[in-house]
Amino acid sequence: MSQTEMVQINGTRFWESIYEMAKIGATARGGVKRLAFSDLDYVGRDLFIEQCEELNMSISRDAIGNIFATMRGQDPTLPLVRVGSHLDSQPTGGKYDGALGVLAALEIARSIYESGKRPLRTLQIINFANEEGARFSPPMMGSGVLSGKLDLETMLNTVDQDGITAREAIKADKTGQYPLLEPHPVHSFFELHIEQGPILEEEAIDIGIVTGAQAQRWYTLDIFGQESHAGPTPMPHRKDALAGAAEFTLAVEQIARQHAPDGRGTVGTITIPNASPNVVPGTVRLTIDTRHPSDEKLLEMKAQLETTAVSIASQRKLEFHLSQLWHSPATPFDEHLQQRLTHFANKRGYSSRLIWSGAGHDAVYMAAMGVPTVMLFVPTKDGISHNESESIKQSDAIAGCQILCDAVVEQLM
Amino acid sequence: MSQTEMVQINGTRFWESIYEMAKIGATARGGVKRLAFSDLDYVGRDLFIEQCEELNMSISRDAIGNIFATMRGQDPTLPLVRVGSHLDSQPTGGKYDGALGVLAALEIARSIYESGKRPLRTLQIINFANEEGARFSPPMMGSGVLSGKLDLETMLNTVDQDGITAREAIKADKTGQYPLLEPHPVHSFFELHIEQGPILEEEAIDIGIVTGAQAQRWYTLDIFGQESHAGPTPMPHRKDALAGAAEFTLAVEQIARQHAPDGRGTVGTITIPNASPNVVPGTVRLTIDTRHPSDEKLLEMKAQLETTAVSIASQRKLEFHLSQLWHSPATPFDEHLQQRLTHFANKRGYSSRLIWSGAGHDAVYMAAMGVPTVMLFVPTKDGISHNESESIKQSDAIAGCQILCDAVVEQLM
Repeated sequence: MSQTEMVQINGTRFWESIYEMAKIGATARGGVKRLAFSDLDYVGRDLFIEQCEELNMSISRDAIGNIFATMRGQDPTLPLVRVGSHLDSQPTGGKYDGALGVLAALEIARSIYESGKRPLRTLQIINFANEEGARFSPPMMGSGVLSGKLDLETMLNTVDQDGITAREAIKADKTGQYPLLEPHPVHSFFELHIEQGPILEEEAIDIGIVTGAQAQRWYTLDIFGQESHAGPTPMPHRKDALAGAAEFTLAVEQIARQHAPDGRGTVGTITIPNASPNVVPGTVRLTIDTRHPSDEKLLEMKAQLETTAVSIASQRKLEFHLSQLWHSPATPFDEHLQQRLTHFANKRGYSSRLIWSGAGHDAVYMAAMGVPTVMLFVPTKDGISHNESESIKQSDAIAGCQILCDAVVEQLM
Repeated sequence: MSQTEMVQINGTRFWESIYEMAKIGATARGGVKRLAFSDLDYVGRDLFIEQCEELNMSISRDAIGNIFATMRGQDPTLPLVRVGSHLDSQPTGGKYDGALGVLAALEIARSIYESGKRPLRTLQIINFANEEGARFSPPMMGSGVLSGKLDLETMLNTVDQDGITAREAIKADKTGQYPLLEPHPVHSFFELHIEQGPILEEEAIDIGIVTGAQAQRWYTLDIFGQESHAGPTPMPHRKDALAGAAEFTLAVEQIARQHAPDGRGTVGTITIPNASPNVVPGTVRLTIDTRHPSDEKLLEMKAQLETTAVSIASQRKLEFHLSQLWHSPATPFDEHLQQRLTHFANKRGYSSRLIWSGAGHDAVYMAAMGVPTVMLFVPTKDGISHNESESIKQSDAIAGCQILCDAVVEQLM
């Protein structure tokens, strides 16, 4: 692609579009609350639709609520280039998680439209429905259904905590009289997202070029000891399920550290049924989230968890039941597209590094359906996301959007 | 006391009375549910009252719901001898916890009545109200108010989980038209109870003669780290409040073990607000229950807890707040009465040992008000109580009741 074919984004307009969207569902502490298929989510979706229509893009919506905004290319028979992310948020989410990627795609469409260039391929922006999974579980529902990895009917029947089904919530879209999308071959998928981790900021790197998504295995561990009275029961007689859980929690941390730098191990929930300050806990349930870029290493970690559980249980005369809740294999992204992003980062004078995604993203489902896929990360202040204090730098956001634009335009032309 | 003055209990009748009471609120799995001031508690209390009235005992009830059954002595001006425990139970409690002590007192009264002897002092049986604290907190409410250590009005205003006050629940006693008890000097207090621990069973000893109640200090520990995403956040960057809590939990166990054999340390509750499997916990709250017969040693344990919290927090870059919830000093029981119990156990051919009570009991409040007090423990199968599977041997129960009878009769005559 020659210099003359490159498209320059309007960085200020892009940044302002993020703040315009962030007004919808703005929280007192600087975050946003746009739960999937809520009234505020629809306000955000409608704003996005209007903005796309101003570019003469045509709008479709599918049965799970994904929105597609299509800018027809010179040869509409060619596989199309998709760019997108999600506008829904966590209950106390930040301004950038998801919205950054959708609005970067919008900015690219705006910049192409204004440039007067007519790309060869069709550009399609996607706003994936219910990425967060905060109201209707599981997360990445829209991309999961689109990829065929999640079952549409099952997803439509999921209920929120008020007993409302996703089906009802999606129907509540009053402006949703869009034509259903006709299946079309896809050339490539791009997603810009905040890192949600501290690595880029710490290394003072402008852009992360994502090599893929880590494999994940989630487990539930039930530990069974013997409830007993905290006063009369001597320490050596106890079968304290919580003390066993505590040892196990530290072992999970240790196992992840043994697989540095990419291994992750988290005990995120722990519950004691009928807990009381003066009762030695007899039963404890906890969840374990393990991640690693290598499927093989993640299986090693699984074996270590099992060995550790056996050893703690035998030493403490406890019983346990370890069961796998969920498994997602490692999903590598397209190497050629990674190289192109590195190329454009260099060309624009931005520093970049390859980085694994520890989190799930819509892009993972796109890659899983066989579409050449890539993601870009921008640095996230202190690595904090899913939080009203989530923050990124304007210059980083603009850099990410410009590099994304360059790579997308290259594929389109 | 000569052999002729001794009173022989009817062991079979005593054991049957326990099973008769256990029918009231019997649970499918062999336990009982007689929550304080519930309909079933009143059925149990009424049965006890009827049985006492058959012995021409006079019945009183005080404002907090304690029941007093009085067998007038030859000299009613002398300080009276009290014997008792409680009929209320945990939600899934056992047949013996509390009921054993009330029905042993009843058996003693029956045996004295049948013997034709007329004791010099007055015998008064107490059924203490709401010992368990399972419906209305705190526990030992009846004995606490009687001793003056708990405020009557405050206790009457406590509410259960349905918003019913103790005041309303006590009024619901339809047969409760008893004269209020007139204050009377008390000579001594005796309570038979199950051990609720494994020591006597393990050492194959028939009777525990209780030297007093351990000192207790309860704490809340709040640990503050940083919530972060379980995927993108590298292990060394984490401020995982739960991992800190796990280290602390193991340290509590370790500190108690350093104060063997009597030291106790229990983390009984642990909660993570807004916990999620894929979020590194940012805040954790746990409770710590520590006990030791020596007030001084318990303070040493407190200092160790504080040092440990400081050290874990500094190593893991966490913050914490440790606050003491409750403190109860060590309460020694009357040495002379302990000696008399040992004497009668020997005389009857039962093995006995001195033992500290790790649990709270109504007797502790009686001792705290200055009444010479003592308790007897009978072995508890596997040390399990507050559980439907709670179990004791008939022969142990009868031994305990007989030794109690001997010691009570000695004080009465």
